[in-house]
Amino acid sequence: MGSTAGRGDAATRYIVGVDLGGTNIVAGVMTADGAEQYAMHSVPTRADQGADAVVERIVQLSERVIAETQAATGASRAQFMGVGIGSPGPLDREKGLVIVTPNLGWRDFPLRDRVSDGVKLPAELDNDANCATLGEWWIGAARGARHVVGLTIGTGIGGGLILNGRLYHGASDVAGELGHITIDSTGRKCGCGNYGCLEAYASGPAIAQRAREALGGGEPSSMPALVDGDLARITAATVFEAAKGGDELAGHVVRDTAKFLGIGVANFLNIFNPEVVVIAGGVTQAGEALFEPLRAEVRRRAFAPAVESCRIVPGELHGNAGVVGAVAIFAQARGLA
Amino acid sequence: MGSTAGRGDAATRYIVGVDLGGTNIVAGVMTADGAEQYAMHSVPTRADQGADAVVERIVQLSERVIAETQAATGASRAQFMGVGIGSPGPLDREKGLVIVTPNLGWRDFPLRDRVSDGVKLPAELDNDANCATLGEWWIGAARGARHVVGLTIGTGIGGGLILNGRLYHGASDVAGELGHITIDSTGRKCGCGNYGCLEAYASGPAIAQRAREALGGGEPSSMPALVDGDLARITAATVFEAAKGGDELAGHVVRDTAKFLGIGVANFLNIFNPEVVVIAGGVTQAGEALFEPLRAEVRRRAFAPAVESCRIVPGELHGNAGVVGAVAIFAQARGLA
Repeated sequence: MGSTAGRGDAATRYIVGVDLGGTNIVAGVMTADGAEQYAMHSVPTRADQGADAVVERIVQLSERVIAETQAATGASRAQFMGVGIGSPGPLDREKGLVIVTPNLGWRDFPLRDRVSDGVKLPAELDNDANCATLGEWWIGAARGARHVVGLTIGTGIGGGLILNGRLYHGASDVAGELGHITIDSTGRKCGCGNYGCLEAYASGPAIAQRAREALGGGEPSSMPALVDGDLARITAATVFEAAKGGDELAGHVVRDTAKFLGIGVANFLNIFNPEVVVIAGGVTQAGEALFEPLRAEVRRRAFAPAVESCRIVPGELHGNAGVVGAVAIFAQARGLA
Repeated sequence: MGSTAGRGDAATRYIVGVDLGGTNIVAGVMTADGAEQYAMHSVPTRADQGADAVVERIVQLSERVIAETQAATGASRAQFMGVGIGSPGPLDREKGLVIVTPNLGWRDFPLRDRVSDGVKLPAELDNDANCATLGEWWIGAARGARHVVGLTIGTGIGGGLILNGRLYHGASDVAGELGHITIDSTGRKCGCGNYGCLEAYASGPAIAQRAREALGGGEPSSMPALVDGDLARITAATVFEAAKGGDELAGHVVRDTAKFLGIGVANFLNIFNPEVVVIAGGVTQAGEALFEPLRAEVRRRAFAPAVESCRIVPGELHGNAGVVGAVAIFAQARGLA
């Protein structure tokens, strides 16, 4: 038993986590107490080959990480409790269905049961943003908190809510669309059809778009050189890199991003009075240049008692957040997290 | 036992509800199952006479409604379980303190225990907006729902959240400040110091202020005549009355109010995916002239699955919402609601 002594039963039981994305499937294994991680691998999703082929790849990848974990630990197959799956949404968790995913082209697809049948283990399904937040709460930046608001900033802005130590899903599993709160009712058009959503200002593509607009003013900037003059190739990472190098225009775009995120986070403080707000995804690359003005904007806008109760921190899990979160989903469903 | 047969123990036990406001104290009695209401009375708060005098009036009023209920039902004193108190916030529920109330001039006042000592019954304390929402959930417009967002619109906009059938309080009892979400980040200054809060657009005084601004354009309107030419006397009620009489300018102000509230409610649908949004307070006087365009704005802005899961309805409790809510607070704390 060695290093697992004293951690109880959960230290010698294992959970597979599967993070299903539009581009890649990532799978890994963790002990049920979240303390150890094993074999993590990734394969292309290849959604164009159809849902059956994607399920087959998920099953093969799961078998591979199970086998590698067994080789590393000597665990028996019976020590594997099940599979947690993080998927793009919206989902029907009770039925285990992926209702719609534009990226994968699925409708009402019974992903949970298909994976469970393939791997011959019980499975649980939740959306990727919920998984990411639960993972940070389980073993990341929000460990030990009772009430957590999670934002994952990438192509869009996903949200997850942990209230009273449990993921909150709402009446029909679509709660937590935190990127789609209006912060300017007559503002930028959002991909969701609404105007002025937080996502329309502070997602990765929105940050890049605001940088391109700023460059239109003709001010000097290092950003064009970073993309060989092809402004279409500017991403949020370009902006953060330029800002770190002292580029003033890029620094402005980062501070505006902090302001927009600060408006949204202030709303969440006044609504939820959480102990932690975790912000994960690519924007954490910007570091304190983003978080410091973000916190200042929140202090300006939110109620003091809510500000005093709350830490606003970057996510800690980075690349394995999806797999950790998927494992956490299964663990929480079994009362282990 | 008669009409209470079959309703169990809670039908023959009683709870006192106290609604403490800046102007009046209202108290009443209900059976612990919420089915019957007895003796309801009101006295002036007279905060200027100091906290001890206010506590004394609360205790006297509670004794009066207990005595009247006993006279009406033949109940013994032992059948009275306790007192629920709704108070302006912020509060420390665990310690039973009113932390600050500008209207009453109190700081860290142990209201719960002072009332409990005076009435010689256990007491529970929560803020008035939480009480109002819990009351609507217990026996009003949100009966039976699992997830409820409540807005009470008056001098300000108060909020209450019922998630998984329980009031949600957050890390330090200040959750649910739903009037203070930013809907226009560079918009109207709010009393809280922030810019563009929902309350700055759609509270009673904000509705009246927008009406006065609209009148400044010189368009014909019946509103000035309704207040004998003294525009300072225009209230939200004036606007609703004029709009009902066909006044176009007032109708515009009502539709704008519906739009602002719709933006806020759409945010709450995307965040909470609730089954019911209850809107209570004076604005319900405006009826469908307000609620119909409000629902249309929500449909335009929120995600379809969240819209499909949710009813948006006026509160049903009206004048006794505060007392019902205070009783409900005590009942929920004892596992009876």
